[in-house]
Amino acid sequence: MNIFSANSSANSLFQKIEQVRRRRSKVHDTNITLAHGSGGKAMRDLIDDIFVSNFDNPILSQLEDQATFNLASLMQQGDRLAFTTDSYVVDPLFFPGGDIGELAVNGTINDLAVSGAKPLYLTCSVILEEGLPIETLRRVATSMQAAAKKAGIQIVTGDTKVVHRGAADKLFINTTGIGVIRPGIAISAHNIQPTDVVIINGELGNHGTAILIARGELALETDIESDCQPLHDLVETILDICPEIHAMRDATRGGLATVLNEFALSSNVAIRINEQSIPIREEVKGVCEILGLDPLYLANEGKLVVVVGRENADKVLSAMQSHPAGKNSCIIGEVISSPPGIVLLKTIFGAERIVDMLVGDQLPRIC
Amino acid sequence: MNIFSANSSANSLFQKIEQVRRRRSKVHDTNITLAHGSGGKAMRDLIDDIFVSNFDNPILSQLEDQATFNLASLMQQGDRLAFTTDSYVVDPLFFPGGDIGELAVNGTINDLAVSGAKPLYLTCSVILEEGLPIETLRRVATSMQAAAKKAGIQIVTGDTKVVHRGAADKLFINTTGIGVIRPGIAISAHNIQPTDVVIINGELGNHGTAILIARGELALETDIESDCQPLHDLVETILDICPEIHAMRDATRGGLATVLNEFALSSNVAIRINEQSIPIREEVKGVCEILGLDPLYLANEGKLVVVVGRENADKVLSAMQSHPAGKNSCIIGEVISSPPGIVLLKTIFGAERIVDMLVGDQLPRIC
Repeated sequence: MNIFSANSSANSLFQKIEQVRRRRSKVHDTNITLAHGSGGKAMRDLIDDIFVSNFDNPILSQLEDQATFNLASLMQQGDRLAFTTDSYVVDPLFFPGGDIGELAVNGTINDLAVSGAKPLYLTCSVILEEGLPIETLRRVATSMQAAAKKAGIQIVTGDTKVVHRGAADKLFINTTGIGVIRPGIAISAHNIQPTDVVIINGELGNHGTAILIARGELALETDIESDCQPLHDLVETILDICPEIHAMRDATRGGLATVLNEFALSSNVAIRINEQSIPIREEVKGVCEILGLDPLYLANEGKLVVVVGRENADKVLSAMQSHPAGKNSCIIGEVISSPPGIVLLKTIFGAERIVDMLVGDQLPRIC
Repeated sequence: MNIFSANSSANSLFQKIEQVRRRRSKVHDTNITLAHGSGGKAMRDLIDDIFVSNFDNPILSQLEDQATFNLASLMQQGDRLAFTTDSYVVDPLFFPGGDIGELAVNGTINDLAVSGAKPLYLTCSVILEEGLPIETLRRVATSMQAAAKKAGIQIVTGDTKVVHRGAADKLFINTTGIGVIRPGIAISAHNIQPTDVVIINGELGNHGTAILIARGELALETDIESDCQPLHDLVETILDICPEIHAMRDATRGGLATVLNEFALSSNVAIRINEQSIPIREEVKGVCEILGLDPLYLANEGKLVVVVGRENADKVLSAMQSHPAGKNSCIIGEVISSPPGIVLLKTIFGAERIVDMLVGDQLPRIC
């Protein structure tokens, strides 16, 4: 076929040719260009310079299109593989107590940990907006590696995409993780039973509040920092003392209220919490009052909700309190049989109200 | 224990419980709102309605924050685990021969397959722009499930994020996959040796050209379709006849030229290909002439580059030609010792030129 037969004018064709040629301009040293997503030389240089050098480990350095592990060595650590994914779009990228890189590592570590898994390996896939300062990307990658090292895991493979200016907001990160669960652990949102006890490892709402204030839309000044932290070591401490944990989840997007509603629905039970026993900083309560937010729905990035049989509650609580990530742990409620699928809050005034699933969205791009 | 103790009226609480239960239903919105990324009710409904119903499988339906698998059953299928990730930002979302959903499944399947792994499980993490028609998301999810079913793999866990209008372009997808490699397979870009032969499974540049034309920036009409397809079954056919494959990679972003340059650099050898033997459609050549593009750098989504010892070349080639995904397979070049790290092209005029790594970017958002 003659491709010139199409009804296009030579002019418009020349314009297209020029556009394509302009796209092949020199690679800037200081900002991300479309060439950094091309699969070619600029991308290879970026990956070598930013990711391979930071995440330095023998698996990633192979630069194959996939990481590989010996299954026998995984089986020495447990009998089941856990597999989880999360994309991070938090705005701003840097906030008091953390940044998108640290969040992307700890968040996925925590999704593995709450299954009882020991986190082992993470992927790192980034979507970059044309024009992003390369120094910003370097800061984020450095922060990811620091978080990975602190948690004792490795970032073993990744992907880099670049989109035109305005087609994405600065930087999005996906991390996907695998970990290994040791025999005898059976943690599930479906395992909760009446008379179980609900424990939290500390104060709620700090992450959501820190992000909100970091956006600078409020003329508020506080010293509230995100609680962004890895929870796998705390979980290991808990499982060492009590392998029979019924359910466990980190209270991120949607906050404590969302986790408890998911628990109540999955196990077809009711959960009643006491407002008085829920640890929330005065500054967080204050910000919530000003903005008409409910701290029970605010995101956290280092808070663990544990549901355990009443007979094990005390030893689990003291084990948690003995761990740096759990020193403010406390019992906040109990599981009852009815009304099934419902979460109830006993207010400080002694009244009882329903804590429904979040309807609408309090704070977009919180993680 | 009476949960209606304290000074709340039993009746009013019963009414509220009924209201709450009534509110838990399917998605009624026609477009994505920020609430669909909140972690709350709207997100749960979206996930149930779009993803769980489409990807329907027992692992995903648990709605835990992670999927878990028995390691012993994985070990029955091989001795190593392969782990790979890719984010997909292709524009437009739908194009001749495929869409972003099919691409996101096949692309990650292929990154597993080229290591010799049997693909087993995929994650699906989406970043949605506020305002995206929910029907578009449904079409993409349906297409993902069709591709997964065709390939015999399962989508077992996922994540949903929503950003403000203008903070992302419609829809981005990350898929991360795991597969199992059987004993005795040692495929690596580092294993290539002089006298090896380079084989490709068909014509180059169809995907890149189809995307370019689908963008409508060119007033061109062709019947070129993307070659988007899963390659794992073709790979299995190859490994059945010849487990001693040296290197294998799918020629996606950056095209054949990029894969061969990565091979030459990783194994410190030279690769010489013959322009005459490289299958490219006339229409693709025509579009490239108009735009000043080189088809050797155009993206493919179903093309496998195989490097094998000369003594095995014939049986591998005929095995590939006997497979539906490889019927147009042919030998396109050979590996020589020097100049190391360089790819050479013997032109149809008998001259020889260097095929360098892609500098700049020909076609952004091709995958």
